[in-house]
Amino acid sequence: MHVVPTTDRVLMGPGPCNPYPEAVAALGRPMLGHLDPEFLAVLDETCARLRTVFRTGNELTLPISGTGSAGMEAAFVNVVHPGDVVVIGVNGVFGERMCDVASRCGAEVVRVDAPWGEPLEPEAVLAAHPSPAVIALVHAETSTGVRNEIAAVGAGKGDALLLVDCVTSLAGIEVDIDGWGIDIAYAATQKCLGVAPGLAPLTMSDRARERRVERPQSWYLDLGMIGKYTTGGQARTYHHTAPISMVLSLHAGLGAVLDEGLEEAWARHQACGEALQAGLEKLGFRLFAREGNRLPQLTSVWVPDGIDEAAVRRTLLVDYGIEVGGGLGPVAGKVWRVGCMGHTARTRNVTLLLGALEEVLGR
Amino acid sequence: MHVVPTTDRVLMGPGPCNPYPEAVAALGRPMLGHLDPEFLAVLDETCARLRTVFRTGNELTLPISGTGSAGMEAAFVNVVHPGDVVVIGVNGVFGERMCDVASRCGAEVVRVDAPWGEPLEPEAVLAAHPSPAVIALVHAETSTGVRNEIAAVGAGKGDALLLVDCVTSLAGIEVDIDGWGIDIAYAATQKCLGVAPGLAPLTMSDRARERRVERPQSWYLDLGMIGKYTTGGQARTYHHTAPISMVLSLHAGLGAVLDEGLEEAWARHQACGEALQAGLEKLGFRLFAREGNRLPQLTSVWVPDGIDEAAVRRTLLVDYGIEVGGGLGPVAGKVWRVGCMGHTARTRNVTLLLGALEEVLGR
Repeated sequence: MHVVPTTDRVLMGPGPCNPYPEAVAALGRPMLGHLDPEFLAVLDETCARLRTVFRTGNELTLPISGTGSAGMEAAFVNVVHPGDVVVIGVNGVFGERMCDVASRCGAEVVRVDAPWGEPLEPEAVLAAHPSPAVIALVHAETSTGVRNEIAAVGAGKGDALLLVDCVTSLAGIEVDIDGWGIDIAYAATQKCLGVAPGLAPLTMSDRARERRVERPQSWYLDLGMIGKYTTGGQARTYHHTAPISMVLSLHAGLGAVLDEGLEEAWARHQACGEALQAGLEKLGFRLFAREGNRLPQLTSVWVPDGIDEAAVRRTLLVDYGIEVGGGLGPVAGKVWRVGCMGHTARTRNVTLLLGALEEVLGR
Repeated sequence: MHVVPTTDRVLMGPGPCNPYPEAVAALGRPMLGHLDPEFLAVLDETCARLRTVFRTGNELTLPISGTGSAGMEAAFVNVVHPGDVVVIGVNGVFGERMCDVASRCGAEVVRVDAPWGEPLEPEAVLAAHPSPAVIALVHAETSTGVRNEIAAVGAGKGDALLLVDCVTSLAGIEVDIDGWGIDIAYAATQKCLGVAPGLAPLTMSDRARERRVERPQSWYLDLGMIGKYTTGGQARTYHHTAPISMVLSLHAGLGAVLDEGLEEAWARHQACGEALQAGLEKLGFRLFAREGNRLPQLTSVWVPDGIDEAAVRRTLLVDYGIEVGGGLGPVAGKVWRVGCMGHTARTRNVTLLLGALEEVLGR
């Protein structure tokens, strides 16, 4: 057998999105060695661009050589010492995943739950334990389309470190690492950054570095060692071979975002999300995430009764080349997740999807 | 600043190599979702092609979403239980790295050392402990250019699991997972597979799966969970977002290798290595790795006295666009590592490097 995919999808699921053309072009650039001065210059500028997008002055800001979940694991293994109390907000799959990852690091996990579709209450998070070592939150819950409040938790965190998942938020809505008091955060390339999946941008404050686990259980994700290569400047030492093509692509994708302007990119995601949510409501879909905390870049909707949701998604994929995402966990088969992220976040794609749905649903 | 690398290198260091044109082209293919049937067909065929290249029938054969070092960590965290005795052969950087990774998993590490440049003695490895849980070896030591014998250890391993690093060997010299009794092995894309760095092909025998760590300390590298997505067939469940473009590229690179023929690819690497080693000796370089255990795809040489090795490497890079690698650890500044792997393994590149060296050294 010889499988050659030829289809050109419009990716409106929970990620990956369609990458920016600049990011795609950079994947095909000539290969460079991981110690080549030309590559190191690109890597340095990539880290600088990440600082701009994260809104941080953190020196330790770099792409982890894995997907967003590797970013999550890197964040936890480098700040959680065995026996540490870690308060984790859970209102979707990725909060649940944090509990699993943290407990594998030997954390004593204190959960703060909110129903799926609802945001976490910052007061409840802050009241969960008198002196946690770490408080961990998902900014944009990809499983529900809910935005959790971060700034209020940052303001009240006290001595705790604040760890935040920015996988689906970074470059799509406001993220302000330094302004919100976030100590360690990670993202992923395939969401609003508009790059192929494979890297996890991560940033860590000096305060978190001072409390860093000296020898984390993960060698691959040991930020002490990785930092000596990626942000080591003249004194850099080899750790592992950087994923060269993916770094070149992230560099270019960040360039596209910053050429447009970070706030302009947020506004573009906002405009698409508003048009999409209004259009879906007109078609009889009911919005799942609570009003006031709805993500523009990831819209979750209850599929109207009487519709075979899997069949409609299949028709969209096969007949129109449009991917939308199904629900996860308790809302699988009942909810859709419609992404409009990165290069996909163009109103013409909203128009296309709404038009296709009108045809398929006959409304 | 805006850094745009434009240089087209001939990559003759220890990796990355120049990728196959087919692998580069595939990086630019339209993005697909990680649950798209078209992507899953490519993923299935990628795993099938990896089985062919690894020479194994192991069902659990897949690309780990990280570089070769993530493959190493995945291998150890999934088979090493706390307190397990792990015998590790050490004759270079990557054997040392194994000791570090294994001890972070709670292993009781029993080292078997050989001098840099010498192969490990299989008898010494087998005699190191009466009943180890795991025996771990590097097949092709990228830091020294030495090939270690695997088959003799596999034949005598008894009840132990045999874990082998095939990062620099796979698709460059013979690797026979099933024939040699290897239980778990990993590789990397940027060496003889001729693909950009970023994925770690991994294979695990049913025997190793039976003794698998139920809940490894790494969530990201948990082969129980990953296997349910990557090789899960109809019942697959989401774990993390696959690095789509890199998988498309690996699929294409494996296609190039298998279209040529695996044994033909080994022969091409062999021919390049022989020509390179003979040519370097003529120029006054002395081969570093012991005769009989020299890798053709990675040649290590003592730089002749009186040559400023760093200056010559810089001239090769800047004036000729050729990258060769320096030495690591105890032989840094004294030894070069010259790779001829993947698409780089063409005799014209050997001719080019030898010609350039003649000019630079004035011989």
